[in-house]
Amino acid sequence: MGILKPILFVQVLLISLFSSSHSLLPSRHHFRHHHHPHSHIVNGSYHIKHFTQNLDHFDYTPESYRTFQQRYLIDTTCWGGAKKGSPIFVFIGDQEDIQHTAGTKGYMFEINKVFKAMVVFIEHRYYGKSIPYGSKEVAYKNSTTLGYLNTRQALADVATLVTDLKKNVSALDSPVVVFGSGYAGIMATWFRLKYPHVALGALASSAPILDFDNMVSPHSFTDIITKNIKSESESCYKTIKKSWGEFEKILKQNGGGDKLSKSFKICAPHPIKDDLHDKLFGLIELALIYSSLSDYPYESHIHTPLPPFPVKRMCEVIDYPKGARDTASRILGALNIFYNHTGKSPCFNLTSESKSSGIQGWKWQGCTELVEPSIKNKNDSIFPPDYKHQHKQKSSDCPKDVKPRPHSITTEFGGHVSLL
Amino acid sequence: MGILKPILFVQVLLISLFSSSHSLLPSRHHFRHHHHPHSHIVNGSYHIKHFTQNLDHFDYTPESYRTFQQRYLIDTTCWGGAKKGSPIFVFIGDQEDIQHTAGTKGYMFEINKVFKAMVVFIEHRYYGKSIPYGSKEVAYKNSTTLGYLNTRQALADVATLVTDLKKNVSALDSPVVVFGSGYAGIMATWFRLKYPHVALGALASSAPILDFDNMVSPHSFTDIITKNIKSESESCYKTIKKSWGEFEKILKQNGGGDKLSKSFKICAPHPIKDDLHDKLFGLIELALIYSSLSDYPYESHIHTPLPPFPVKRMCEVIDYPKGARDTASRILGALNIFYNHTGKSPCFNLTSESKSSGIQGWKWQGCTELVEPSIKNKNDSIFPPDYKHQHKQKSSDCPKDVKPRPHSITTEFGGHVSLL
Repeated sequence: MGILKPILFVQVLLISLFSSSHSLLPSRHHFRHHHHPHSHIVNGSYHIKHFTQNLDHFDYTPESYRTFQQRYLIDTTCWGGAKKGSPIFVFIGDQEDIQHTAGTKGYMFEINKVFKAMVVFIEHRYYGKSIPYGSKEVAYKNSTTLGYLNTRQALADVATLVTDLKKNVSALDSPVVVFGSGYAGIMATWFRLKYPHVALGALASSAPILDFDNMVSPHSFTDIITKNIKSESESCYKTIKKSWGEFEKILKQNGGGDKLSKSFKICAPHPIKDDLHDKLFGLIELALIYSSLSDYPYESHIHTPLPPFPVKRMCEVIDYPKGARDTASRILGALNIFYNHTGKSPCFNLTSESKSSGIQGWKWQGCTELVEPSIKNKNDSIFPPDYKHQHKQKSSDCPKDVKPRPHSITTEFGGHVSLL
Repeated sequence: MGILKPILFVQVLLISLFSSSHSLLPSRHHFRHHHHPHSHIVNGSYHIKHFTQNLDHFDYTPESYRTFQQRYLIDTTCWGGAKKGSPIFVFIGDQEDIQHTAGTKGYMFEINKVFKAMVVFIEHRYYGKSIPYGSKEVAYKNSTTLGYLNTRQALADVATLVTDLKKNVSALDSPVVVFGSGYAGIMATWFRLKYPHVALGALASSAPILDFDNMVSPHSFTDIITKNIKSESESCYKTIKKSWGEFEKILKQNGGGDKLSKSFKICAPHPIKDDLHDKLFGLIELALIYSSLSDYPYESHIHTPLPPFPVKRMCEVIDYPKGARDTASRILGALNIFYNHTGKSPCFNLTSESKSSGIQGWKWQGCTELVEPSIKNKNDSIFPPDYKHQHKQKSSDCPKDVKPRPHSITTEFGGHVSLL
């Protein structure tokens, strides 16, 4: 077993890098989940349990003693047991319902057989069914109740639950490894940093741990997307690059909006012109971003159903269109691959989502702690010249009584390179 | 310099082990400061500054955005400067006024010359002049305002202040070492664990980091005191050991209380009998505990003025009394060395301290987070057979609306030995 372990872990790493959900930073995650094909898949054979958590682990005000029920899933079918010191694999929940998360993390229920591991999925506070204050309505009512939705409390939840669980099953000698992808991958990394006495290791995939407080260049995000598409096809990149100007020209013409709406098969009623500009550009930008994020060598169903190598496929129809050869038709072909892989959508729906009354949890985290750094766009970027990352969270969306603390992540978890 | 550094650090360690203030866990610290001879000593040449801190670093409720002024002392006279990457030595404040702390930490103002270090003393929130809510009266009013007095917030204070300070003096490359003794030594240790990206090292002296959540044997405290006195003189140990029974016998006699009060030169008015038992025993117990804690080879002035080798001196007068040879006279001689080294006190004052209206900060910490584990007493202990560590904090002293969280320290900072 000794020599097998590292090899298997590398395999696990590779698997997870290629199959994990990319729950990214706030606005980059503002992507409609058109389909959740996996949300009803039940991997493994887990039990649903609940753990009583303190609302506030760090303070001792009367309010901090309020408790809530945190949901977690536990699968012990392959566990070798406490006496053998068999490991406990803890998948840290993100902003999704934890059963959905478990449904998309099939590899957890593969590696548990290899390592004779107990598998635990812990739901993140304020998401899924792990809602404080008895109801989502109250929990999400205002900053006073939402104030406890943050990473440090969520990490302490995991530490408390895992410590208690190990005691309860008398498995103090069972090593714990935490797993996570996307936001949960960040959390897994931070968990290992802050609770090395609880977790022997962490496996974080697709975790943008440096995407805070200007630790990386503001150009890095647009650079990476650009580079990815350029590396697939230089001419594809050029077509997309020049398309923004062409579309803007059309939009300025009389009846240009209707013309473009028809070219792009936008569902009626068509948005008015200014709105159309932002929404159409947003539609294309998201396709570029998420096809790159989900550029797997096999079919995937994470954000939307996609063919293998989606960027390659999108560039193929841009470079070698089967029908009309104008720019709009080429781009439309690419959008069809990204948004309409199943071929079931007759048109693109650009009407706004119904606005929910309260602030969403993920937006709240972006307003306070997980503050997205500014994004800039070089001249050779594939995005439009005035690209302002329009999906970026606006501070005007945030409650008035909270201010962002953009340095809190780096103060608490580090990351800025320094000799100390 | 390269090879000198480790050697000097060992010296520093030794110095600090022998000279630091023993601010111990709650009840063990319930020792009246008869004298503060050092409280007006000003070491080094520091400036007093203030830093605006968030009351709550981890939550985002409107209340958490409340700020307070944290006081810190900064001495840059020996600092080699940012360009040379000269270090920053941060002494973490404990429950004392930070100027008093700086006054008793002379070695900080010695080693700064050797290392060309900046010296910073940071006052602990809710102590000294670093009081939230504008006044101590409001800050200490109830659990709602006191709830933010805890170690995790205090550690985040240090991280935030140091990170900001380094930016302000453009000293990002200057390594930071945190220092502390007693409670502050625990804090220095935890700071290095939780903020390794801020502090390159920590020097903790006399820091009982394992004295939580039954990590060490409940007998260890009484065992260590017993062993220390026994190692000085077996007969001294035996005299003290049998004295408790003798005093109890006298107390049961008619007029025994008055007799004992006179023998021990208790100031009038004498306490009534039951009270006398507890107070007299407490007086002796504290002398045994703190003479062991302050058993330095030179004169010290930390808890009370003491001669060099106080335990040896106390045992000398117990073993070889100059005057009367009865047990009470022997013990009185020892008490005189501990409490009356200056010879200025004609009698021992056992009347109660005036009770302050609010709870003290240190008691609050003992009620909530720094929960003292139970103390047990073996048959061969030097303490009385029914020794219940009477100075131990009683839960009835704690506010009714907070409950202790005895596992919070080990969950947050680890310590229980385990293979993970």
